[in-house]
Amino acid sequence: MFDVAHIGHLELLTPRPQESVGFFVDVLGMEEEAREGGSVYLRSWGEWQRTSLKLTESDQAGIAHMGLRANSPEALERRAAAIEETGLGDGWIDGDVGHGPAYRFTDPDGHVMELYYESERYNPPPHLRPSLKNQPQRYRARGCAVKRLDHVNLLAADVPAAREFATERLGYRLHERIILDDGRETGAWMSLSIAAHELIYVADAYGARGRLHHVAFWVDTREEVLRAADIFLDHDVHIEAAPSKHAVAQGFFLYGYEPGGNRVEVTTGGYFVYDPDFEPIVWTEAERAKGQAWGVKTVESFHTYGTPVVEPA
Amino acid sequence: MFDVAHIGHLELLTPRPQESVGFFVDVLGMEEEAREGGSVYLRSWGEWQRTSLKLTESDQAGIAHMGLRANSPEALERRAAAIEETGLGDGWIDGDVGHGPAYRFTDPDGHVMELYYESERYNPPPHLRPSLKNQPQRYRARGCAVKRLDHVNLLAADVPAAREFATERLGYRLHERIILDDGRETGAWMSLSIAAHELIYVADAYGARGRLHHVAFWVDTREEVLRAADIFLDHDVHIEAAPSKHAVAQGFFLYGYEPGGNRVEVTTGGYFVYDPDFEPIVWTEAERAKGQAWGVKTVESFHTYGTPVVEPA
Amino acid sequence: MFDVAHIGHLELLTPRPQESVGFFVDVLGMEEEAREGGSVYLRSWGEWQRTSLKLTESDQAGIAHMGLRANSPEALERRAAAIEETGLGDGWIDGDVGHGPAYRFTDPDGHVMELYYESERYNPPPHLRPSLKNQPQRYRARGCAVKRLDHVNLLAADVPAAREFATERLGYRLHERIILDDGRETGAWMSLSIAAHELIYVADAYGARGRLHHVAFWVDTREEVLRAADIFLDHDVHIEAAPSKHAVAQGFFLYGYEPGGNRVEVTTGGYFVYDPDFEPIVWTEAERAKGQAWGVKTVESFHTYGTPVVEPA
Amino acid sequence: MFDVAHIGHLELLTPRPQESVGFFVDVLGMEEEAREGGSVYLRSWGEWQRTSLKLTESDQAGIAHMGLRANSPEALERRAAAIEETGLGDGWIDGDVGHGPAYRFTDPDGHVMELYYESERYNPPPHLRPSLKNQPQRYRARGCAVKRLDHVNLLAADVPAAREFATERLGYRLHERIILDDGRETGAWMSLSIAAHELIYVADAYGARGRLHHVAFWVDTREEVLRAADIFLDHDVHIEAAPSKHAVAQGFFLYGYEPGGNRVEVTTGGYFVYDPDFEPIVWTEAERAKGQAWGVKTVESFHTYGTPVVEPA
Repeated sequence: MFDVAHIGHLELLTPRPQESVGFFVDVLGMEEEAREGGSVYLRSWGEWQRTSLKLTESDQAGIAHMGLRANSPEALERRAAAIEETGLGDGWIDGDVGHGPAYRFTDPDGHVMELYYESERYNPPPHLRPSLKNQPQRYRARGCAVKRLDHVNLLAADVPAAREFATERLGYRLHERIILDDGRETGAWMSLSIAAHELIYVADAYGARGRLHHVAFWVDTREEVLRAADIFLDHDVHIEAAPSKHAVAQGFFLYGYEPGGNRVEVTTGGYFVYDPDFEPIVWTEAERAKGQAWGVKTVESFHTYGTPVVEPA
Repeated sequence: MFDVAHIGHLELLTPRPQESVGFFVDVLGMEEEAREGGSVYLRSWGEWQRTSLKLTESDQAGIAHMGLRANSPEALERRAAAIEETGLGDGWIDGDVGHGPAYRFTDPDGHVMELYYESERYNPPPHLRPSLKNQPQRYRARGCAVKRLDHVNLLAADVPAAREFATERLGYRLHERIILDDGRETGAWMSLSIAAHELIYVADAYGARGRLHHVAFWVDTREEVLRAADIFLDHDVHIEAAPSKHAVAQGFFLYGYEPGGNRVEVTTGGYFVYDPDFEPIVWTEAERAKGQAWGVKTVESFHTYGTPVVEPA
Repeated sequence: MFDVAHIGHLELLTPRPQESVGFFVDVLGMEEEAREGGSVYLRSWGEWQRTSLKLTESDQAGIAHMGLRANSPEALERRAAAIEETGLGDGWIDGDVGHGPAYRFTDPDGHVMELYYESERYNPPPHLRPSLKNQPQRYRARGCAVKRLDHVNLLAADVPAAREFATERLGYRLHERIILDDGRETGAWMSLSIAAHELIYVADAYGARGRLHHVAFWVDTREEVLRAADIFLDHDVHIEAAPSKHAVAQGFFLYGYEPGGNRVEVTTGGYFVYDPDFEPIVWTEAERAKGQAWGVKTVESFHTYGTPVVEPA
Repeated sequence: MFDVAHIGHLELLTPRPQESVGFFVDVLGMEEEAREGGSVYLRSWGEWQRTSLKLTESDQAGIAHMGLRANSPEALERRAAAIEETGLGDGWIDGDVGHGPAYRFTDPDGHVMELYYESERYNPPPHLRPSLKNQPQRYRARGCAVKRLDHVNLLAADVPAAREFATERLGYRLHERIILDDGRETGAWMSLSIAAHELIYVADAYGARGRLHHVAFWVDTREEVLRAADIFLDHDVHIEAAPSKHAVAQGFFLYGYEPGGNRVEVTTGGYFVYDPDFEPIVWTEAERAKGQAWGVKTVESFHTYGTPVVEPA
């Protein structure tokens, strides 16, 4: 069942590529690993793969594609076949910087995804060699110094359809969800591991398709999230939601917008699910109305803003 | 392959049961969940199962048995059969407080283990009901307030044999190891999940069999580990190793002895392994001689002390 | 000039004395040090004086008096004389649990205050003796485990009058203030030490006199403030403002109401003022409208609620 | 009495000036504020004065002088006169980058010191302007990002003489001390404020005069000290003592050597002394033999190494 290992990388679109690279390098503290075909490939210091983020210029912000790494060549074949059946498959591409052949498809909401197995292990240049051999790269302590890509939150016009695809075709396990009083499912938190969430679908307020809510990068401590807020503040990054603790999944968050407009989270915390018979937590409308874990009311834009930006109908 | 979910519980032996219970309740901050047959069953606030620790009186400290939870009834059957083949199987027991039928066996070093699937979900009494529904129990903030059982470190006369059994019969993945200059493997860090380590075998300095090095309980932050040191200090708990960061697995640690003599760790941190082709890190004798991550020299007793206590030959 | 050392204690009024004691002992983690005359005297583990908080039953919540410790017997005489001149003096009382003769007076807003020098040094009973001799009491790790009384925020109908009294008669140094567009001074943050604030006056939204905005207890880390929010949540304490960072004075805060209705803060952080020529920071109306340091909008009740509770005219 | 405000700056000598500047800028995260006469002037982001550290090339490492800021022009005159009486005065100099006329003298151990009042307030260039007006400079998040110069520890052949000079001529208050079994005073922790320590004298193991033990820079959290250890590790800075908590003064520490050889501490924590009748804590030889707060044994070099380096007789 666990044919898919994790979200290995993401391609973000930005109308302001230079400023976006500046944000991810200087503010988030990532490293530029490669430039090719007009795109810039970045990595976090705690990642064993070469790259987890590809930035590509575009008219509008948004997510170009999300890359999922399979657990083995056989698992890759199995998943590709399972997706092929759904009619959402697009076929194979040769690969990209850092990874080999990938099977392209879309989720039911139109987000472009790809599955791959072959991945290039990061080989640090001398000035980035770490002191500890169980760490892929030197810790440079620049900006937020995010450790790795953690999770992706996608907006979907039809959350149940997207959630079913993720659980049935990709093998995600459902951990938490929101069901409104009228029965509508407006959020689904899923994972391939003990981490509480790795892939999230939430309802698109405008019924649009294929949009990104946010991409989250991990730091090991809440102190680093608090510090990231100071860094955002003094680097003129718009803070949409100041550090606090989510009720759903209990992650500790900070949300801001990178210069291209995509929402970025610096995150840590949450909980682990070790129990094989864990029953998904269901949040009601009334419970969600209480705000975040400590009562912070969620800012309105958090429920509506996504990339690309769309106008309310 | 991932037939086993996690280490669900541990039974510790103690010659001073009352003081040991006092330590786990007042200092570590666990809850007493049941008493039966002279044993006391305890739980941490973040555990969905009823109990993760059983304390049983005995002449000597040590580990009575370790309980592993299977991922499904079928997985349980498969693993029991696989162990049966090795001749290390002991057969089925009816169960215990909090779990159903279990297949008993020993690892090659003689540590008693059991595999089970049926597990009672924790149902908090009114005064322990949490405010957040994705949390199994109220957070009481007593002592160290450990969140859950994290990992177990077992001493073994023959590390490679124990490590092979764990990887081949139980499905553990090997993440880090120590290989001395003479080729001897003296430590193996293994996991069933993305967590860097869940089960560890290290060489028993006296060549004894079936001993416990330590059991580790998780807290979410390094600040809580530092605070735990203050708590140990002011509750007269012997601190064997003050808070610092391990080189191997990069866990943040505090080690002390509970009144019965068993070594207990309060831990957090480390790293996650998402890569399916992660290659086990191998530490050499020279690298280990450098001490912990920040150069702290490991205290001698850490290499020799275990429970039950044995005398050097 | 520095004739006054610090705010040594506070007497709070509560219509629910038993529940209030429960809050300060179980949730904040203070110790009950004495009971006398129907009042309960409490202390935090990091205080060298016997007691910093006196709880007294009353019809309404509020502050009964605030005790300021002078730096010497001579300083006490000097300050008493300086206050006497203003006509706000009430004369001497014999003392109370933990301190000797005190000179009673009110500030221009009607808050009862007292100045004293003789103070009883805390002598811990055996079960509360600390391990480190530079710590007055054992660290018990119960609830929020606040370390000491940190600062007091008083509502005042006339902030400039109160601020002038504090700086001219008590020797406080002004560090930060709020001046509205119409020239009104609505807040003054003052200190007797390098700490950014120890005594605050903010404008009473209802023009009432003698009310309390909040009393703040110190913890050493932001992690403890975050943890305190979890404790408040699971102990049914109303969280008025979840943890975040103030713009003014940069303190890290959590605000809740104790059962009697008084607002209590758990705080840490801020900055130190070492410069003798430090110029008070002046915040404008526009700057304050931006919310707290990371953009959190201040909840409306924070601007209006105080004890005793008064109704808007 | 409190005529002196704080240690405003320090001049360190280094045989490797370029590497030393690199350390303070890239690893500690300070800003270069000026270069003049071959010296480099640095500042931390939380300082209202222009500069707190002057680096000057020399054959040997060590401290060239320590600058103390007086609380007023009158206080400066009073202190200069009080020092003049002792015969340790050297007379006035015109000033230096960032400050005006200073009275030069030596302590009884030969450390060069100066007292000044006029100090240039830091005026950040546009790219270093902070978002919060109660912060002197933008937070750049480079390396350890130390906030300010915190304290200085000087080695002295005769600790009582140096301690007496500091308390009687400069107005320091004694908070903690070490008295050996033979009656020798080998350490004195003193302060001009509520901070537990700002100036420390400890016995020089070799009986040398005028040496530096260490200079400490402040960060606001223990997490930043732990993070600093990771930064030291991955920037090849020799870690002499990994993060832990001192018994004396309870500061949380990390010690390393800058490239020139001077010992540098990254520090936070400790406690505040508000009590005017606080009695200095006296540590005995037996108590100090227990190691640091959590039992960490102090590394031998910590008792002997200082700058300039001297050979044991």
